[in-house]
Amino acid sequence: MWKGILEHYRDHLPITERTPIISLQEGNTPLIRAETLSQELDIDLYFKVEGANPTGSFKDRGMVVAIAKAVEEGSTAVICASTGNTSASAAAYAARVGLRAIVLVPDGHIAVGKLSQAVMYGAEVLAVKGNFDQALDIVRSISEEHPFTLVNSINPYRLEGQKTAAFEVCDRLGEAPDVLAIPVGNAGNISAYWKGFVEYHEAGVIRRLPQMWGFEAEGAAAIVRGEPIPNPETVATAIRIGNPASWKLAVRAQRESGGRIDSVSDEEILQAYRRLARAEGIFAEPASAASLAGVIKMREKGQLAPGARVVAVLTGNGLKDPSTALEAVAVKPRVIPCDPEAVLRAISERGMSHGAL
Amino acid sequence: MWKGILEHYRDHLPITERTPIISLQEGNTPLIRAETLSQELDIDLYFKVEGANPTGSFKDRGMVVAIAKAVEEGSTAVICASTGNTSASAAAYAARVGLRAIVLVPDGHIAVGKLSQAVMYGAEVLAVKGNFDQALDIVRSISEEHPFTLVNSINPYRLEGQKTAAFEVCDRLGEAPDVLAIPVGNAGNISAYWKGFVEYHEAGVIRRLPQMWGFEAEGAAAIVRGEPIPNPETVATAIRIGNPASWKLAVRAQRESGGRIDSVSDEEILQAYRRLARAEGIFAEPASAASLAGVIKMREKGQLAPGARVVAVLTGNGLKDPSTALEAVAVKPRVIPCDPEAVLRAISERGMSHGAL
Repeated sequence: MWKGILEHYRDHLPITERTPIISLQEGNTPLIRAETLSQELDIDLYFKVEGANPTGSFKDRGMVVAIAKAVEEGSTAVICASTGNTSASAAAYAARVGLRAIVLVPDGHIAVGKLSQAVMYGAEVLAVKGNFDQALDIVRSISEEHPFTLVNSINPYRLEGQKTAAFEVCDRLGEAPDVLAIPVGNAGNISAYWKGFVEYHEAGVIRRLPQMWGFEAEGAAAIVRGEPIPNPETVATAIRIGNPASWKLAVRAQRESGGRIDSVSDEEILQAYRRLARAEGIFAEPASAASLAGVIKMREKGQLAPGARVVAVLTGNGLKDPSTALEAVAVKPRVIPCDPEAVLRAISERGMSHGAL
Repeated sequence: MWKGILEHYRDHLPITERTPIISLQEGNTPLIRAETLSQELDIDLYFKVEGANPTGSFKDRGMVVAIAKAVEEGSTAVICASTGNTSASAAAYAARVGLRAIVLVPDGHIAVGKLSQAVMYGAEVLAVKGNFDQALDIVRSISEEHPFTLVNSINPYRLEGQKTAAFEVCDRLGEAPDVLAIPVGNAGNISAYWKGFVEYHEAGVIRRLPQMWGFEAEGAAAIVRGEPIPNPETVATAIRIGNPASWKLAVRAQRESGGRIDSVSDEEILQAYRRLARAEGIFAEPASAASLAGVIKMREKGQLAPGARVVAVLTGNGLKDPSTALEAVAVKPRVIPCDPEAVLRAISERGMSHGAL
């Protein structure tokens, strides 16, 4: 019986006797073999489905630690900047323990599902006329001067919690994969996974380390370009970040693991996004598909050996961003009269064009 | 390591040697204790969070069985009518195994998240100008005459799969609860839970049976009123059903268990929906909150003893229906300039009114 990551990975986390063991049963997410795509790409591909977490993204792993520590330290309010997933997670765990949550989101650039979450959980949501990077600067400075606990990933407890996803991958496979492919936005998650793999390696749980492959969106590829991007743009709003907070840690993960940080275009992201849903029955948010898009791109470029075991991290649930899904597919359901004949006609017509979408 | 319900509950399911053991790692969903609400209501309350399933609802439990059996029987296409959750689930599992999926939904009465799922997974979505009950009549008649496997809950494999949720409740608690509270729409789920409890009781896994408490939405309360409702209306679209297919089974579950089938108003549903998110950090879809709304109503009416152990089933993920959430809370995020002073001003103003929402 799963009791959440504070309980399950207690020995690997910065927990004291005074840390409240809270949980919404985050973690223990599916690792699903991509039966169709493994065959099509001639690799051994798995998806780590982080959208199955309580608020629908990997952020819950780090947030449960950050919030538990905030409670332990006597905090009464938390604050963060967010492209949406962090705010949903902060709001949920703050609600669970009765803390006040203040979240800053970039006005007009947050998926509707994420906004609905933060609002429902009772967070105080402020939409700032700026982007994520600017919002992060503000909450950083405010948290230094005022009694609000910062729960962005520069809060070290966040990465501590997030590293448990690497533990789970190893626990399931019995070993690290050859390649861990992951979307890169603020660059905290790739850093956290690397920390997890290194700790398991040092503890003797795994015998080898994976290559870390991070993929930024082309319009927000600060690390790939080697400089911050003042106005990042991408359909993958969750990684629409131009100045990653964990930049150095991410580059270290890439170097130490002999991996790569590359970028994928919005078109490649949306293609991978659709292919994932149709081939495997997994609906992830657009940013999540950056990992699969990167794997496909590298395989096509001959940078990935046949048969390689690859785990692609799907960071968030597709339900976070239904509008992008409907636009990406560009198919409106056909509206027809409510009688069997009309339905049968539509079925045989659609049958003719099936697969053409 | 969880492998999905076909594998885990194999001995309790109608599986043969020829049944393909498919999975998106459905089942094994959180049972979360309601810490705050248990105290406020003076009962021992748990939530069975079915929104954590792969497509975000309890439907995945039954669908994985129905689709596996369809494959076993050589079917190449499945068809269903749906208020949204069934279509999402059917589309995902059909995609996973390469079957064609045809889904009928009531035009204009399906939550945006659910529509985005069915479309993304590649189902052929037909929006009929009618309600769920009419759409169900059509797919029933079509499946009798044509080679499409019907995967609505009148397909017996569906309820077989859904009963596993009752197994999980008992496996976690070590015994059945005093009361199992559950939303009632098409009435398949209350019937499936009862089947699960009875089977576990007969197998000696549990020593006593729970009371089954089902709650319909007031505007779609056919069973409570004792007659079909031609034009059901409720904000809880997932249970907007006026002529439940499993009506008789549901009444039997209620009678045999000494339980009740009652109704809750849209206002009670929306209040429970908000309270759940704010008190416990759990975001479920509106229809799910019918179970909590019913528990609150019964407790207030003195129909539920202090200290009673109650499991309320939350059938679907709140992200399925972000629009209702934003409307229910009726708070638009405040848009402010991107500078620390403006943010601090907003925080202190909001802080003054915090809790007033």
